[in-house]
Amino acid sequence: MIHFNSDYTAGAHGEVLEALVRTNMEHTVGYGNDNYTAEARDLIRKAIGCEDAEVMFLVGGTQTNATAIDGILARHEGVLAAVSGHIAVHESGAIEASGHKVLTLAEYDGKVRAEDVDRYIEEFYADETYQHMVAPGMLYISQPTEFGTVYSLAELEALSGVCHKHNIPLYIDGARMAYGLKAEGADFLLTDIARLADLFYIGGTKCGTLFGEALVVANRAFLKNLFPLVKQHGALLAKGRLLGVQFGALFRDGLYERIGEGAVQLALRIREAFRAAGYEVVKESPTNQQFFRLPNDVIDRLRETISFDYWGPRGATDSVVRFVTSWATTEEDVDVLIHAINKK
Amino acid sequence: MIHFNSDYTAGAHGEVLEALVRTNMEHTVGYGNDNYTAEARDLIRKAIGCEDAEVMFLVGGTQTNATAIDGILARHEGVLAAVSGHIAVHESGAIEASGHKVLTLAEYDGKVRAEDVDRYIEEFYADETYQHMVAPGMLYISQPTEFGTVYSLAELEALSGVCHKHNIPLYIDGARMAYGLKAEGADFLLTDIARLADLFYIGGTKCGTLFGEALVVANRAFLKNLFPLVKQHGALLAKGRLLGVQFGALFRDGLYERIGEGAVQLALRIREAFRAAGYEVVKESPTNQQFFRLPNDVIDRLRETISFDYWGPRGATDSVVRFVTSWATTEEDVDVLIHAINKK
Amino acid sequence: MIHFNSDYTAGAHGEVLEALVRTNMEHTVGYGNDNYTAEARDLIRKAIGCEDAEVMFLVGGTQTNATAIDGILARHEGVLAAVSGHIAVHESGAIEASGHKVLTLAEYDGKVRAEDVDRYIEEFYADETYQHMVAPGMLYISQPTEFGTVYSLAELEALSGVCHKHNIPLYIDGARMAYGLKAEGADFLLTDIARLADLFYIGGTKCGTLFGEALVVANRAFLKNLFPLVKQHGALLAKGRLLGVQFGALFRDGLYERIGEGAVQLALRIREAFRAAGYEVVKESPTNQQFFRLPNDVIDRLRETISFDYWGPRGATDSVVRFVTSWATTEEDVDVLIHAINKK
Amino acid sequence: MIHFNSDYTAGAHGEVLEALVRTNMEHTVGYGNDNYTAEARDLIRKAIGCEDAEVMFLVGGTQTNATAIDGILARHEGVLAAVSGHIAVHESGAIEASGHKVLTLAEYDGKVRAEDVDRYIEEFYADETYQHMVAPGMLYISQPTEFGTVYSLAELEALSGVCHKHNIPLYIDGARMAYGLKAEGADFLLTDIARLADLFYIGGTKCGTLFGEALVVANRAFLKNLFPLVKQHGALLAKGRLLGVQFGALFRDGLYERIGEGAVQLALRIREAFRAAGYEVVKESPTNQQFFRLPNDVIDRLRETISFDYWGPRGATDSVVRFVTSWATTEEDVDVLIHAINKK
Repeated sequence: MIHFNSDYTAGAHGEVLEALVRTNMEHTVGYGNDNYTAEARDLIRKAIGCEDAEVMFLVGGTQTNATAIDGILARHEGVLAAVSGHIAVHESGAIEASGHKVLTLAEYDGKVRAEDVDRYIEEFYADETYQHMVAPGMLYISQPTEFGTVYSLAELEALSGVCHKHNIPLYIDGARMAYGLKAEGADFLLTDIARLADLFYIGGTKCGTLFGEALVVANRAFLKNLFPLVKQHGALLAKGRLLGVQFGALFRDGLYERIGEGAVQLALRIREAFRAAGYEVVKESPTNQQFFRLPNDVIDRLRETISFDYWGPRGATDSVVRFVTSWATTEEDVDVLIHAINKK
Repeated sequence: MIHFNSDYTAGAHGEVLEALVRTNMEHTVGYGNDNYTAEARDLIRKAIGCEDAEVMFLVGGTQTNATAIDGILARHEGVLAAVSGHIAVHESGAIEASGHKVLTLAEYDGKVRAEDVDRYIEEFYADETYQHMVAPGMLYISQPTEFGTVYSLAELEALSGVCHKHNIPLYIDGARMAYGLKAEGADFLLTDIARLADLFYIGGTKCGTLFGEALVVANRAFLKNLFPLVKQHGALLAKGRLLGVQFGALFRDGLYERIGEGAVQLALRIREAFRAAGYEVVKESPTNQQFFRLPNDVIDRLRETISFDYWGPRGATDSVVRFVTSWATTEEDVDVLIHAINKK
Repeated sequence: MIHFNSDYTAGAHGEVLEALVRTNMEHTVGYGNDNYTAEARDLIRKAIGCEDAEVMFLVGGTQTNATAIDGILARHEGVLAAVSGHIAVHESGAIEASGHKVLTLAEYDGKVRAEDVDRYIEEFYADETYQHMVAPGMLYISQPTEFGTVYSLAELEALSGVCHKHNIPLYIDGARMAYGLKAEGADFLLTDIARLADLFYIGGTKCGTLFGEALVVANRAFLKNLFPLVKQHGALLAKGRLLGVQFGALFRDGLYERIGEGAVQLALRIREAFRAAGYEVVKESPTNQQFFRLPNDVIDRLRETISFDYWGPRGATDSVVRFVTSWATTEEDVDVLIHAINKK
Repeated sequence: MIHFNSDYTAGAHGEVLEALVRTNMEHTVGYGNDNYTAEARDLIRKAIGCEDAEVMFLVGGTQTNATAIDGILARHEGVLAAVSGHIAVHESGAIEASGHKVLTLAEYDGKVRAEDVDRYIEEFYADETYQHMVAPGMLYISQPTEFGTVYSLAELEALSGVCHKHNIPLYIDGARMAYGLKAEGADFLLTDIARLADLFYIGGTKCGTLFGEALVVANRAFLKNLFPLVKQHGALLAKGRLLGVQFGALFRDGLYERIGEGAVQLALRIREAFRAAGYEVVKESPTNQQFFRLPNDVIDRLRETISFDYWGPRGATDSVVRFVTSWATTEEDVDVLIHAINKK
């Protein structure tokens, strides 16, 4: 069986795992106060071109989003997000559990538009009952989005601009950032992210590590006292160096870039194969997640040797499915898939 | 430098790490729905003698305590704990952050007494203003305690009895349970824990894994819908099988017991050496944490080659220090320490 | 100036105020444990035909909604409500502040449909990722709605049925219940409300008292330990008897019914006058809130002598406005208004 | 029966009630945006000598404390308070329900000492694990305290000094402030309170109004966006002018001062009578709450005609009881009591 279900079904990239094994018997202080974490923090600061950013490593994405959002917002504020945003749908209410409403915006292939953000905020304060409603206190976006799409640099500039016009921070969920940076046609760099977002996280779980996300506070004015907040949210790893060791491996010699590059190229080969075989590409994704509309009998046949995700029916005889590549996907895996696609 | 600072300064026990390496490139479903997790769950059910217990694996201790306590308590209830209990002191307010007061009881070498619990609850309901106060909704204890001491079976029976007399659950924080089970003079088994506690967790982080705690709901009436609650608390690991693989390694062939046994024997050798050298043993701990009163010049001399924790001054010329052993401590480490102790 | 802005712009109905004045110098125990409160509780139990209901008096509507919802829901659950529901819009995030998401449904003149509730719940549990999403744990409706419309008995039966089919409670916000019970064409009684809803509140603030809402737990299985929860939510009045005295006045001799009847009749006269004068009735409301589309110059002219609420522009030259009657509205007030309407 | 149980057993002072009756049929805008509230706000600003203070009127004390504390503290912070402080004991966990730990200090007749506050904060930051503990983010005191005692001006200066040395706000719960200002030997003024505290509230419920507390933010840097926070906490009264009307009556012509003066004088007469009759005065209270140790048979005898609070046994044959005066206590009430005391 060959797997295209998700980018978190395997363990860690070999170089990351090797670093964990190599350092396993060393003794270090806990909670991220060790030298491996310090080095990883510096590598990330360098990679994002922001020497004075605060960088903290957390275990998972839900925690990272919940902690960052809770730390930024005042009690009476909520977070703006696409109606399809991860925090609006798939965090089991973690944002609300810390007291904050998710204020939803229309989504366009998973993305929000700067003009919608602007109008929401303008209309909010124009409503004379606004103090009885939840104030928009920050903007959350995912880059790439939950549908694999990517904001262009111009779109990011516009979103950052509208946020700062209204004096609210822009927060970017970068769970799959590696695949976004190497997306087909991507015109933004990690330094742009750090320049335009006030906070963001660079995901490890889906991009080569066993687990772990690097939360970056580029604009420190928006989030102070991060350490106790991370602890309070249960997101502080006792053996914090495990995160430092892994992110060190990702950022020391360009592994993070190689992972993104490799997975995207394989995803594009898959997209091309399905398109060439005459199937509809449902979302025009330039990253490692690809969505296709396939006849149900084709799905059944493919599933004999290949594993992938089902997203829902489309008409009586077709369905939408998702294929995801990652650092763990090989050229051979994709060859087998393409062979299966064409074996009609 | 030889390290006795804590039981979470090194990585994972060799057999645990080997299991992670061996399974690294396998693809499994996420969030703990894989076969490794299922097997680990069954191994733990067998070890605790409770076939229908719910077992769920979380990443860290703060999360596990916060999730379990939040899941058990009604909104108007708080959790009883020793004034020295971890949740009362060192969770950065994680319990209060989910809305619940920690109601403190006197501690006796880190332990609470059944009669104190009984009196607290009796007096609470005898106070005619009790509905204006926070109701005691559960009891939290640590086994072993934060000071390395251990409840006897009779003490556990008494605590369980008083809890059930008042119809509140008993929850046991077993972050270091392996060392408690093998403590000098320990007269309780893991099956006793499962029989007497309504919920408890078996810690991995300090007992051989890279990270991870196994939350056991022995009495399911007290905590339903654990899965979404774990997710909401940010405690659900995407690659959940990493926890299953590690706990499988601990419980498949008795590794968990060997780890406890080994570390405790080394700790007792250390205690004996300090005592023989004429130093005061501060807490009469039968587990892997040992506390001594040493002259400050002795501390300075030991620190040239050995690393350990400082707990605070005791008079003008002495201090209390802590030495901790773990699965990562070797006989040779202890030989070096004992040599240093005796080299006055 | 004559006022039709809202039903909470004046003080209390004369009979209510008189009761407060008459009892002012009496001494009673606090927090609702007095005899006036006991009597009011019994009067309400009688009026709703439910002898064993729990009845508790709170100060205001936001509190009552927040307390009831927080008391009913488990931590991983949210509350279903119309997208126009008060808790979804105008509670400043009070529901989220206690940790719960408001799950919105489409609104039809402010009402939700039983089939939508059913489909939401069916689709929720059919989604294999449902444990990562917020579970629908109760249904919130307003009777009458924020737009003055009223659920028919058949609609209430259907909503109650679908809730109980899925084992979630139905909660009714009755801030303006008095006006709903006497609505044009209303076919439900207070006893129907108590029979079909598991919890509801009978509003006082907008229906004759200075302040105060009577929270009724018809089905006690869904909400225990109400007293400490009310206190915790800051909704417990020290001089609790003030609520008992006021609700006693409302329910002892049918004042509550007379208030509803009077205000609705006056509202219908207003509706008729606007309709007769050729203006559009925007929502076909049978209660004390009426919405009309008026030319802006007519609005300006009316405002010289009459005060009412502006709801928003409709096209270039018209706007929607709201006229509200209450126990404080007189026949003379309406005569003046009708005269002004017709003085084109 | 004559009542000395508490200062919230009767309704409102005649002048306050009269103002409510007089304005009852007026129509005003809601939520405290009316002219009565504006006037009351200005009267309070004048009384406290702080023209730019924010003043907001809330319904009750629990709400006021919970809202103010929640608004001030960052998520990782807790509130310092005497172990006997109202928020530490009798708020049903309202502070914890909004996510914050109450950090307790020793009490001396209900008061905390500046040196204890200083030592707590110094020791907190000296502990190298401090980021794992709840940071002291503000100080809460009651003036007068729950035991009727009063901080001297020097004590208030010291507390304010130590708070500002450590850059945390001082918050004063003034539920019974009127009685503290007129306490025997009181050497502080309301202007001192406003100068030394960053926030405080002037209680109405126990000092002449039906209900209501005036929250004063003297130092606006510590609490912004109070309005939506008050709404979110369910503490915003729809008919907000009811609070303005009542506080206007208290502060327009010195009624607040007269109420304090009268009740304290009567309380001191009672204290003198018990002392002269040979009974022990338990707390040396200079305010309207008085505590005595009486033989149980005396208690039984007094209770035939007089009502007061029982606080607990003292030895086998005695008990401690509380007598409270208020604006509703008359000279005749006290005459009757003194007669009963002396009728041995």
